[in-house]
Amino acid sequence: MALSLGHLQWRYATKKFDSSKKISPSNLQTLLQSAQLAASSYGLQPYKILHIKNTELRERLRPASWNQAQIVEASDLLVFCAYNQFDTQTIDDHLALVSQVRHQDMANLEGYGNFMKTKLLGLSQDTLQNWMAKQAYIALGFLLTTAAQMGIDACPMEGFEASEYTKILNLKGQGLQPTVAVTLGYRSAEDGLAKAPKVRKPLSELVIPL
Amino acid sequence: MALSLGHLQWRYATKKFDSSKKISPSNLQTLLQSAQLAASSYGLQPYKILHIKNTELRERLRPASWNQAQIVEASDLLVFCAYNQFDTQTIDDHLALVSQVRHQDMANLEGYGNFMKTKLLGLSQDTLQNWMAKQAYIALGFLLTTAAQMGIDACPMEGFEASEYTKILNLKGQGLQPTVAVTLGYRSAEDGLAKAPKVRKPLSELVIPL
Repeated sequence: MALSLGHLQWRYATKKFDSSKKISPSNLQTLLQSAQLAASSYGLQPYKILHIKNTELRERLRPASWNQAQIVEASDLLVFCAYNQFDTQTIDDHLALVSQVRHQDMANLEGYGNFMKTKLLGLSQDTLQNWMAKQAYIALGFLLTTAAQMGIDACPMEGFEASEYTKILNLKGQGLQPTVAVTLGYRSAEDGLAKAPKVRKPLSELVIPL
Repeated sequence: MALSLGHLQWRYATKKFDSSKKISPSNLQTLLQSAQLAASSYGLQPYKILHIKNTELRERLRPASWNQAQIVEASDLLVFCAYNQFDTQTIDDHLALVSQVRHQDMANLEGYGNFMKTKLLGLSQDTLQNWMAKQAYIALGFLLTTAAQMGIDACPMEGFEASEYTKILNLKGQGLQPTVAVTLGYRSAEDGLAKAPKVRKPLSELVIPL
């Protein structure tokens, strides 16, 4: 089956949104579902997605985001946050969900649980933190491709002060730390970057056949 | 525009591939293009994708991959590798590409280049390494969603010994380190997991509205 990648050619990191255009609740639901359906190591999904509609909060986040206008001009702002702790409980919670969804006895999941615990709980806090963040990046990838399929513009954003976000959004109290943000909406006709040729390494440079 | 996420419901981490079914060269090209078109911080794409067809090499990688059969049974194996160094040259190479694709004088890109250098080159080697890996994970997300759209199965894989991969694939000499792998192909009818209900946190738990 041939697939056109026109939607991926169409997308770009939108700097200027048309703030009069809002994403419908059902489209937003679809976007969040695409992140929910993302692949994640052992299915653990060790992150949360803050969906920030509150304009006052977004005004406060803007100076902590290199003053980028997308934070307030886009229709919606999502902040992917990794857990700031990963422990036995995180795995047991997941096993309980598997048990519930697949109607499996917890006893039958014990071996699988122990395998995960052996592989993960010995890792350093720093390694776990980066690993959880990487899982959030997969979800970001799912959401960005889905947005492009839907004709919804997005700007993934790493350019923010994590410590400021943590304070403003009270993340520590929720056991979270900010990983990556994405603003979503519809491009403004004034965004010149929309027409700029896409800069990508040629496949011959990006891919090494072995 | 309503979008069905049926393709994302359909996908799962395929454990058992039908090794008689191969991905066509044109479909494989599309998959690689989807990774090429992935978003990446400043557009830098600080990674390479090893496309491993060589069966002898894949046999050697299998024991370094927790002995998982997908490594040899899938149609294709990709290994995303982050650069193991990130420096002024990496940024200058990118600026040269921007200049070429967008017909801009290098002189006009100097301010942008200096901005990137200020933001990135002061980071620790460890932070840069994880940041480059995260960019590869976005590309993984693009590729996985595209594969699902095409009815191509995939198993993203973190379960391998990076040091063994580095040796077997001679990565150090190429300035690379393995980040995440993905096997691609078509599911075997024998893979019971294909029919198992998908385990995902409910949106009410995954998403925090603010």
